[in-house]
Amino acid sequence: MPTSEPAQELWALVMAGGRGARFWPLSRRALPKQCLSLDGGPTLIQRAVERLSPLVPPERVLVVTGPDMADAVRSQLPDVPPENLLIEPRARNTSPCIGWGAVEVARRAGEAAVLAVVPSDHVVADPAALRDALAAAAVAAEKGSTVATLGIRPDRPETGYGYLEVGEPVADGPARRVQQFTEKPDEATATAWLAAGQHLWNAGMFVFPVGVMRAAFAEHLPRSAAALERLYAGTAQLDEIWGELEAISIDYAIMERMDGLLTIPCDVGWSDVGTWHSAAPLLPPAPGGRGLARHITAVDASGCVVHAPRKVVALLGVDDLVVVDTPDALLVMCRHRGQDVRQVIADLESRLPAPPT
Amino acid sequence: MPTSEPAQELWALVMAGGRGARFWPLSRRALPKQCLSLDGGPTLIQRAVERLSPLVPPERVLVVTGPDMADAVRSQLPDVPPENLLIEPRARNTSPCIGWGAVEVARRAGEAAVLAVVPSDHVVADPAALRDALAAAAVAAEKGSTVATLGIRPDRPETGYGYLEVGEPVADGPARRVQQFTEKPDEATATAWLAAGQHLWNAGMFVFPVGVMRAAFAEHLPRSAAALERLYAGTAQLDEIWGELEAISIDYAIMERMDGLLTIPCDVGWSDVGTWHSAAPLLPPAPGGRGLARHITAVDASGCVVHAPRKVVALLGVDDLVVVDTPDALLVMCRHRGQDVRQVIADLESRLPAPPT
Repeated sequence: MPTSEPAQELWALVMAGGRGARFWPLSRRALPKQCLSLDGGPTLIQRAVERLSPLVPPERVLVVTGPDMADAVRSQLPDVPPENLLIEPRARNTSPCIGWGAVEVARRAGEAAVLAVVPSDHVVADPAALRDALAAAAVAAEKGSTVATLGIRPDRPETGYGYLEVGEPVADGPARRVQQFTEKPDEATATAWLAAGQHLWNAGMFVFPVGVMRAAFAEHLPRSAAALERLYAGTAQLDEIWGELEAISIDYAIMERMDGLLTIPCDVGWSDVGTWHSAAPLLPPAPGGRGLARHITAVDASGCVVHAPRKVVALLGVDDLVVVDTPDALLVMCRHRGQDVRQVIADLESRLPAPPT
Repeated sequence: MPTSEPAQELWALVMAGGRGARFWPLSRRALPKQCLSLDGGPTLIQRAVERLSPLVPPERVLVVTGPDMADAVRSQLPDVPPENLLIEPRARNTSPCIGWGAVEVARRAGEAAVLAVVPSDHVVADPAALRDALAAAAVAAEKGSTVATLGIRPDRPETGYGYLEVGEPVADGPARRVQQFTEKPDEATATAWLAAGQHLWNAGMFVFPVGVMRAAFAEHLPRSAAALERLYAGTAQLDEIWGELEAISIDYAIMERMDGLLTIPCDVGWSDVGTWHSAAPLLPPAPGGRGLARHITAVDASGCVVHAPRKVVALLGVDDLVVVDTPDALLVMCRHRGQDVRQVIADLESRLPAPPT
């Protein structure tokens, strides 16, 4: 993996508008998943920003988030300048905030500046490898005037991710052409792709010169592009144009429809830690499974995931549970039902005047 | 059931020395099961004393308990005179405290006074029926100069209780002779007895003139009886004789070996609420089972028992769990493992310098 850096300044846009509802009750509207520490150390967003340095120092990191969680994000990232915090008036999927981010970088550093979009709530075990991959993506995207994604080597037939079919290599560098971008294949397809080794996961990390992204908006999202032009020209404020931006994901709006997409295959120890089950490996081993608590005792218990930092927790005759304790709410669930925490939240929000969500 | 009262004053000895460890983490050394409310209403011991009135008013209620829990017992029973609180120097099974209680009543009201021993941590759904049964037992015990137990009609082949084989009726009253007293039969025996209908459960409630009990001590526990005589005569203090009292249960020491034992068959809605599982019917119905919490939400959950009065609790994809939350400790267990909570407590007490037990 080459470590040569792009000719232009590399900026980053950290996507921190998500709620991380599947980590309820630890995650809340005002303290979403990216603002949590699952293991007692720095929070996910703190690590997401830290691992960009020195490739992208904090003064070139933009963070896009929502009004509910802005205070938590701001207080957790004291090194990111206040003007780099982009607070969406309301969540409208990923293309509006990436369009906004591209406009901001273009205004501050010009059309040729290169921007890396990265998630705020994932885990990367090897930050140096991530920086190498981002740098290579920046070089490739700059040379090719295109978008370069990071492609994660699959280790299981996951059906919840997007897959990149890898094509020809690009001359003198690790980048490969992307033949096809497929969201959420069925399990048979995912299993076949895993065996064949020609597909990579899309992990929501991609790099582009901001002028390229603005041109892509003009081609694929012309209404959004027109609104963003007014923002760029200073003839409209964000509040005035936000409602005009199409509420669609960048993957569907641009990535799937763009020619010349590149990918940098990489192994960076990536995990989206989407549920308590997938976050379990981050927690320390404990009696009865893994977990964080004042003390855990287990009698005939296994496979459990506990997060109850203030409590003595006892597990007796139970297996494969997730137990999450907070001062006002307690979740006890089968660890394989992590996707359904949203149902719990919906129920609480429909029944309680002041739900602890 | 006759409601005629005995010729002599009826006193009560409420047995409140137990720890109720199976209700941990709600129960603690300083706040044992009898001092808990499982349903949000009065505590078990408050109800145990209340339901004796007017048959036995608080001034004739003695409560025997231990030093750890004396403060809780005292504060919960403001109508019981302070001198009626008998604090055991240390727990030595049931015969020492019953011997002591008999001496106290004999000193205050004479040898002919009748004493009813009752538990503090059981539930009785029909207090009027209980008072009728205790009054009938007092009459029968007084007439027969013996001990009369309350015999509970079994409704299941429980193997954890003592069984009374019912014999001939005694003239003019509901009392029956006890043919045999058997602790903890095996399941086949318990099932056969349930079908045959000639056995009743011993529920730890028995009534006797105190002179009769003192004579029984003299016969069956002569060493204890000699020590208790010194207490009665005022020639020794409790602390001096406590160590001389044999640490044995009243059932094994006296009841099983006594001739002429009587029983009053009764249906008083009795339950010993020995575990969270057996206490479940006392808790209100709730999503996912029964429980007490600020709010409970359940998705694909059933048969659970929750006690978390301060919390919003969510159950997702789990069945037959007991979940008990307190400010410093949290228990999650299979509801059929209630007997093994003791193992949890032993583990905590061996590992933590200040265990929340």
